[in-house]
Amino acid sequence: MSDFEIPDLKKMKLPADLKKLDQKQCEVLCAEIRQLLIDTVSKNGGHLASNLGTVELTLAIHRVFDSPKDKIVWDVGHQSYTHKILTGRLERFGTIRLENGLSGFCRPDESVHDAFISGHSSNSVSAGLGIATAMKLSGSKRHTVVVLGDGAFTGGLVYEGLNNAGKSETNLIIILNHNEMSISKNVGSIAKYLSTLRTKESYHKTKNVVEKALDKTPLVGKPIIRAVKASKKAVKNVMLNSTMFEDLGFAFIGPLDGHDSEALENGLNAAKALGKPVVVHVNTIKGKGYAPAEENPGEFHGVGSFEIATGNPDVVLPDSYSSVFGKELLALANKDSRIVAVTAAMKYGTGLQYFAKAHADRFFDVGIAEEHAVTFCAGLASMGMVPVFAVYSTFLQRSYDQLIHDLSICGTHTVLCIDRAGIVGEDGETHQGIFDIPMLTSIPNTTIYSPSCYEELRLCLRAAVASRSGITAVRYPKGRDNSLFEKTDLNTAYTLRRNGGRLLVVCYGRLYDNVMKAAELLHNEGIVFDVLKLVKIFPVEKELYELVGSYDRALFFEECYRYGSIAEKYSAVCRNVSSYAIDGFVRHGSPSVLLDECGLSPEKIADRIREHCNG
Amino acid sequence: MSDFEIPDLKKMKLPADLKKLDQKQCEVLCAEIRQLLIDTVSKNGGHLASNLGTVELTLAIHRVFDSPKDKIVWDVGHQSYTHKILTGRLERFGTIRLENGLSGFCRPDESVHDAFISGHSSNSVSAGLGIATAMKLSGSKRHTVVVLGDGAFTGGLVYEGLNNAGKSETNLIIILNHNEMSISKNVGSIAKYLSTLRTKESYHKTKNVVEKALDKTPLVGKPIIRAVKASKKAVKNVMLNSTMFEDLGFAFIGPLDGHDSEALENGLNAAKALGKPVVVHVNTIKGKGYAPAEENPGEFHGVGSFEIATGNPDVVLPDSYSSVFGKELLALANKDSRIVAVTAAMKYGTGLQYFAKAHADRFFDVGIAEEHAVTFCAGLASMGMVPVFAVYSTFLQRSYDQLIHDLSICGTHTVLCIDRAGIVGEDGETHQGIFDIPMLTSIPNTTIYSPSCYEELRLCLRAAVASRSGITAVRYPKGRDNSLFEKTDLNTAYTLRRNGGRLLVVCYGRLYDNVMKAAELLHNEGIVFDVLKLVKIFPVEKELYELVGSYDRALFFEECYRYGSIAEKYSAVCRNVSSYAIDGFVRHGSPSVLLDECGLSPEKIADRIREHCNG
Repeated sequence: MSDFEIPDLKKMKLPADLKKLDQKQCEVLCAEIRQLLIDTVSKNGGHLASNLGTVELTLAIHRVFDSPKDKIVWDVGHQSYTHKILTGRLERFGTIRLENGLSGFCRPDESVHDAFISGHSSNSVSAGLGIATAMKLSGSKRHTVVVLGDGAFTGGLVYEGLNNAGKSETNLIIILNHNEMSISKNVGSIAKYLSTLRTKESYHKTKNVVEKALDKTPLVGKPIIRAVKASKKAVKNVMLNSTMFEDLGFAFIGPLDGHDSEALENGLNAAKALGKPVVVHVNTIKGKGYAPAEENPGEFHGVGSFEIATGNPDVVLPDSYSSVFGKELLALANKDSRIVAVTAAMKYGTGLQYFAKAHADRFFDVGIAEEHAVTFCAGLASMGMVPVFAVYSTFLQRSYDQLIHDLSICGTHTVLCIDRAGIVGEDGETHQGIFDIPMLTSIPNTTIYSPSCYEELRLCLRAAVASRSGITAVRYPKGRDNSLFEKTDLNTAYTLRRNGGRLLVVCYGRLYDNVMKAAELLHNEGIVFDVLKLVKIFPVEKELYELVGSYDRALFFEECYRYGSIAEKYSAVCRNVSSYAIDGFVRHGSPSVLLDECGLSPEKIADRIREHCNG
Repeated sequence: MSDFEIPDLKKMKLPADLKKLDQKQCEVLCAEIRQLLIDTVSKNGGHLASNLGTVELTLAIHRVFDSPKDKIVWDVGHQSYTHKILTGRLERFGTIRLENGLSGFCRPDESVHDAFISGHSSNSVSAGLGIATAMKLSGSKRHTVVVLGDGAFTGGLVYEGLNNAGKSETNLIIILNHNEMSISKNVGSIAKYLSTLRTKESYHKTKNVVEKALDKTPLVGKPIIRAVKASKKAVKNVMLNSTMFEDLGFAFIGPLDGHDSEALENGLNAAKALGKPVVVHVNTIKGKGYAPAEENPGEFHGVGSFEIATGNPDVVLPDSYSSVFGKELLALANKDSRIVAVTAAMKYGTGLQYFAKAHADRFFDVGIAEEHAVTFCAGLASMGMVPVFAVYSTFLQRSYDQLIHDLSICGTHTVLCIDRAGIVGEDGETHQGIFDIPMLTSIPNTTIYSPSCYEELRLCLRAAVASRSGITAVRYPKGRDNSLFEKTDLNTAYTLRRNGGRLLVVCYGRLYDNVMKAAELLHNEGIVFDVLKLVKIFPVEKELYELVGSYDRALFFEECYRYGSIAEKYSAVCRNVSSYAIDGFVRHGSPSVLLDECGLSPEKIADRIREHCNG
């Protein structure tokens, strides 16, 4: 574009026309995008700080590379909003995370520019290596660009990927988006190590100077001559391989200022020219350009809607299953020094901040490392501690082998507090908590509780901690307890509400409230049925098989994937079971709409019951 | 012990009395232990080379530390035989891996000296950190000693552990048993990096000398003075943190000669005195002391019985499900350049050596990194390749999240060839392949084939490769096809053998042969029944629900864990299903004995059928 012209994204052919902008126009564009991000996320909720931090980086990537011929893989996807805006999704951007709107993550079925699915952390290097390898095998000279934050480096999958990528002879470019945060402040020694790189502004210069000096060793003074001569090669190795990435076989470029468009483009062009696997270290400021987010990026990592002026986010609901869990665990831990709390980078999300503050020595944030979390718990438990691992249902999937191998075989007692169980809503397919029941029921020595309200959560947590052996899981949904049912006869086993019907409806967790609402809906129609609310949902006690088997028909409503559901366990023994569980992945949207779509709203539950009574 | 006396393990109080030996006695003892290892493994099978490599190391550990007060965690357990011998299991050592004998791995229920379970690779740092943390919290000054091979470093869980351990302020001692092998030759850049450490004999010396030199910079000649002065701190950082482990916060000792008892004890004593997390790098020779194993440690990693004189191992059976798979895949790949083969350090075990030789560019051994393997496949598949991941059933457990998140949501087509499915026998609880069906059936977009003989495996593999979308798994057992049933009407769907009964027996895989043998046993008793052999076992086609439902009763026999079995899927629809699957973990022993114990031998199957006919 000639002269200065304010770039108008709406009129541009994207992402191709981005290459025509000059640096000044880029700057203006970045400011506009930031405003759009703030406006949209303030309405729709979503990931703000991480997206604000990567505006310049995303623009630079699209100016240096040609998506979709070059493939861009975004780890987690928390930082992909600008990418969406720049790849033809500007007009729909206001719908992000809304019903039928854009996904909050990358999805190949949403855009050809989303090269790979994102949602769960740390998969991008492996996926990118697969893509780059396919390019190599097909003779393509195109590039694969992977963008991941330093937070993803706490997950072991990244290392498995790096170990294979470093020597791969592909055109893989790995951009380390370094903001020193994953979701909360990063933990562990990797974070510390990466931070030392961040501050090595003089890294390249130093390296060159020292390298030259070493080449000239005969000239230097005596004391160091001997040392250096004796071990010139060893020293050179150390000097030339002085980042972990170089140790692993990558070229290394950086650190680059992640908010300097020109520096970024120069760095990326250098990476592009190398023709070998390279790590580009980019320093970014999470929350860049929005003061409340810059000051407190942890709270602005993933937010519901918030007020732009005050920046008041509502991520940590004081009234939520998470906080009820957190406070109850604190109360238990105050009386029992064996209790240790573990989280995989979700201190606030799981409500463990209360525990962490009061018992810092017994609180462990292990990073985005669910495998380690479980095996670490197993080690603690083998010494008589009572570890409590608070984890989102969807992320527990990463620990399947550790649950079997490190915990279950020995019957070691560990408590899993599974937050975000069932439909989570806006985060979509990658985050719905619908596999924890199939997963855990397929592991011996496992007990699962599914409380239907806050008070039952407290009871279950106490029972789980008091249990002596095996994996004891308590699963509960995201958000608030909005249940209206009468809170009598709460316990940790089950409650049968008899109305004299020959039909039994079986449920657990928050669906109990929906079932009771369905009962109200059907009351006027004269349809009566008994309701069995399970609290300890697995293993199934003999008396419950007998109870369920004694009815003409038992309808199970469950917020979990159908194969591996609790109904299946009953079906194997009882001949009268009809199962209504979830039939596959669940798209993003509001939880109530999705529950309805899955046939689990009060109305849909009523429909199913009516069918049985009238059929 | 005074003077020289040949140490007699049988008379010693173990491990305490080991501390009384002098170095000469240690040497004699190590030679004796080596002979015992060779004799025993030559009879019982097991892990030879790795155990031969760690005799001196194990002895040194037990001389420097006090097990069980100090805790020793062996990664994988392939190297724990000497530990078993030295901790009260000498007399039973001849029973290792045999029916009712010692386990081939570490088991806390076998000995108080086995601090943690072993079997699956790369869990030891996390488990050890849990134990060390519990010690710290309880005020104990005892040590936790973790021993892991460099092979384990290809697994991401190790990094998650290191990331947390490096900064843990515990007494954790991590011994890197460096032999440059995992199971086959190590792969990836981590291996290369560790090897650079292995050869840095002068590492400590160099470091000290250069450090001193840097402290004296004012004295040295001009050209380097400027460079060094300008960046003294940066250079010093690089020099002082010159191993990856130091970058991660560990003290570092080594490399030590793993066959020099005195050097080992000195190194371990130094580590013990540090009072902070430390990595001790020990160089060992896998197979040390037995020429055939030293020359070919890959083949001697895990062996069946072998002849001592020739050292002829039989790990790669030319006649096995693995080799039939490997040869068929090669034939397919010769005609289809989209086919790519991936293994997680099991090239020989899975029969991929044929493919690897013919198509080196399309063969990927990713190390012990099953998570990466699956996501790497997803990346390849997203570009139109047809990745085939050959993996043992038990190790696929590590990929549960990647199967869901990276493959299933997008419906990307990848073929899983699941070897060692069902009872594997001698390796025991940690290795039985009884969870792949519960795991895979709980993942949408998954198809599972379970062939009953070699020819059916070929048919299934062809169908799986030809499939267009989703995860397509083919599962088959360890070892040979010994089936005797008539090989007619082989296909990839199902076969119904009608005998006019009202009873149906349903099975798949190698159990079909057992069922046919049971039919013979019952023939004389006049008991007749129909047999449904499933080949595509999941998802279940509607016509099969109808077929099974049309009988008075259907008995399912399955070599998988009961919760999540195929029978459960039928139970949810049919009212006449009785399920006979496996009721929990399965101990080690010979497969035929274990199958009988699980009620799945021809005789036990006949018993169950008889019960139904007579009851």
